[in-house]
Amino acid sequence: MSPLDIDPTPQSSARERVRLDLGPQSYDVLIGRGLLEDPASWEGLPNSATALVVSNTTVAPLYAARLEAVLRARHRQVLRLELPDGESHKDWASLNLVFDALLAGQADRKTVLYALGGGVVGDMTGFAAACYMRGVAFVQVPTTLLAQVDSSVGGKTGINHPLGKNMVGAFHQPLRVVADLDTLASLPPREFSAGLAEIIKYGPIADMVFFDWLEANIDALLAHDDRALRHAIRRSCEIKAQVVQLDERESGLRAILNFGHTFGHAIEAGLGYGEWLHGEAVGCGMVMAGELSVRLGLVEAGFVERLRRLVQRARLPTIGPALGTRRYMELMQVDKKAEAGEVRFVVIDGPGRARMAPAPQALVAEVLTACTAP
Amino acid sequence: MSPLDIDPTPQSSARERVRLDLGPQSYDVLIGRGLLEDPASWEGLPNSATALVVSNTTVAPLYAARLEAVLRARHRQVLRLELPDGESHKDWASLNLVFDALLAGQADRKTVLYALGGGVVGDMTGFAAACYMRGVAFVQVPTTLLAQVDSSVGGKTGINHPLGKNMVGAFHQPLRVVADLDTLASLPPREFSAGLAEIIKYGPIADMVFFDWLEANIDALLAHDDRALRHAIRRSCEIKAQVVQLDERESGLRAILNFGHTFGHAIEAGLGYGEWLHGEAVGCGMVMAGELSVRLGLVEAGFVERLRRLVQRARLPTIGPALGTRRYMELMQVDKKAEAGEVRFVVIDGPGRARMAPAPQALVAEVLTACTAP
Repeated sequence: MSPLDIDPTPQSSARERVRLDLGPQSYDVLIGRGLLEDPASWEGLPNSATALVVSNTTVAPLYAARLEAVLRARHRQVLRLELPDGESHKDWASLNLVFDALLAGQADRKTVLYALGGGVVGDMTGFAAACYMRGVAFVQVPTTLLAQVDSSVGGKTGINHPLGKNMVGAFHQPLRVVADLDTLASLPPREFSAGLAEIIKYGPIADMVFFDWLEANIDALLAHDDRALRHAIRRSCEIKAQVVQLDERESGLRAILNFGHTFGHAIEAGLGYGEWLHGEAVGCGMVMAGELSVRLGLVEAGFVERLRRLVQRARLPTIGPALGTRRYMELMQVDKKAEAGEVRFVVIDGPGRARMAPAPQALVAEVLTACTAP
Repeated sequence: MSPLDIDPTPQSSARERVRLDLGPQSYDVLIGRGLLEDPASWEGLPNSATALVVSNTTVAPLYAARLEAVLRARHRQVLRLELPDGESHKDWASLNLVFDALLAGQADRKTVLYALGGGVVGDMTGFAAACYMRGVAFVQVPTTLLAQVDSSVGGKTGINHPLGKNMVGAFHQPLRVVADLDTLASLPPREFSAGLAEIIKYGPIADMVFFDWLEANIDALLAHDDRALRHAIRRSCEIKAQVVQLDERESGLRAILNFGHTFGHAIEAGLGYGEWLHGEAVGCGMVMAGELSVRLGLVEAGFVERLRRLVQRARLPTIGPALGTRRYMELMQVDKKAEAGEVRFVVIDGPGRARMAPAPQALVAEVLTACTAP
């Protein structure tokens, strides 16, 4: 028996539920195993004439048939669209394929879209749903760790522009998020680690108990331990739900969820989308934002050392690519949090607490020198 | 002195104001002369660092400098973008030029967009504002009659898809609508008539007193009589405001504003966007929808004769192009009001009242035979 056949902990059939309380746009995140093929996961969603499953060429062959089988009991017509895989395809050309498929299928205003895949599929499907006929419903069915703990929850949708990540998009909440843990089994280790970056993020900005737990359980997570995975995903969704409930449209607080993302987006855009995975860029970006917080006198160096170590243990990079300080600065200038030409960073304001702050260019340059490859 | 130099009625300097009461998204439509260069028209709007004036190659040379002069007192940076003119350019390629301009100008989330032009410019600028960084503010500065009485009011934004008009878009309300009657002086007669179609529309669906007034004043309107124009524009905006206030997202009632549009969109898409002006297609479409209402037994033939006569006097077509009944049917199938494959029409349910109704294919075919070129 090979080690791969060993199931380290018994897998529970329990289903977790995290509620996002957003008034008329409220919805549940369901977390569990076997959710895809379980009719109960889809109960209560609208029985529209048409459903469109949007996936990509990697995920669709693995899971689309299972989802479609259960949806065919609910919709007269179940269409499928497979987008090209990867962040480099998170653009208008791919988005337009969704509109083409909807119009070719004579999809009306009651149509429900199902986003089956990772963050790219979820963001594009959600944005297509926001825009098709000025808004139709959609359901998130995240199949990557990153999508299950972050991007599928909270209603941010969009596509990239060559000059900036997620620059074109909409706030459009899904009707439900169905996170089937079974789909993580097929996730390449590099993508799994990328998801861990967004899980780690919730510690420094909101919950040091969770950060401590992550330090103790990062190896169990890397081993796909069922209990550890469930806890990490549920706790991540809970924290995200709390923040989004308080500030759905990111007029303030919600920006803290972008810890590490200002540096991270610069890495992604600077190298070309898809070169580094989003989670890899965020992992490295968190260390940079932590270093900036230290230099602003907001947190002790020891805390950032803990963060760096945890990011490393999650098998994520902590040294940024050599884009040059000037290029980093340019790229960060177009960040969505910038105002009147001033870049604003999410900084750690003591362990477990984050806020937005501007930073002197000299300090940012110091951080870039310290944290990027020569 | 040539007839063109005669000012038939004294032009009032009074400014009319129509309020759209939409809770936190409430705003005013200002109607008057000399509004562009009057600082009072812009008071109370946000003084953001950056403003982007989006116009087209026809309108910008006439009016952009005037608007920019007044905006430079309000914004540190006033950018301009001239889109190609015409419905055939209401597509993603043009929309992306707005994003390019915003990102090249390092426009942040507080940026205000100004849509200076007709319906195409307004719809695209509004949609770009809805999507840029997931939503920035915009102001409508309509310079065509059609935009002043219809498209700039109510927050519908979007672009066309080769398979259907306005299929991709968003509901995104402007901060204000500034309708300067002086800009109508430069409007080509064909575009002026197209605007009259959307004015005429408000009679049959909502206000027979207005319809009677239009019959009495259509020639004054065609002569750009100041008093007639003011009344027609204000009354149109009032009716639109009443309907939009009751049903902003078009879950029901608002659809009546699409009287004539199901047939009209089929004409536009079938001939290729821009071949007929939108208002021309709507003018003809209203006669078709009127004929359908007669055949459904909802209104008397005499009423549709009055409508046809008024549309003709406005110098609009009342006979549709020879696309063939099957092609019309196909094109109407993708209308946004269709549900589960059933096309639904806005019909006149007695003079001054409209509602949505399905219609037997045979009746629709009869109307197409009666109202299209052989």
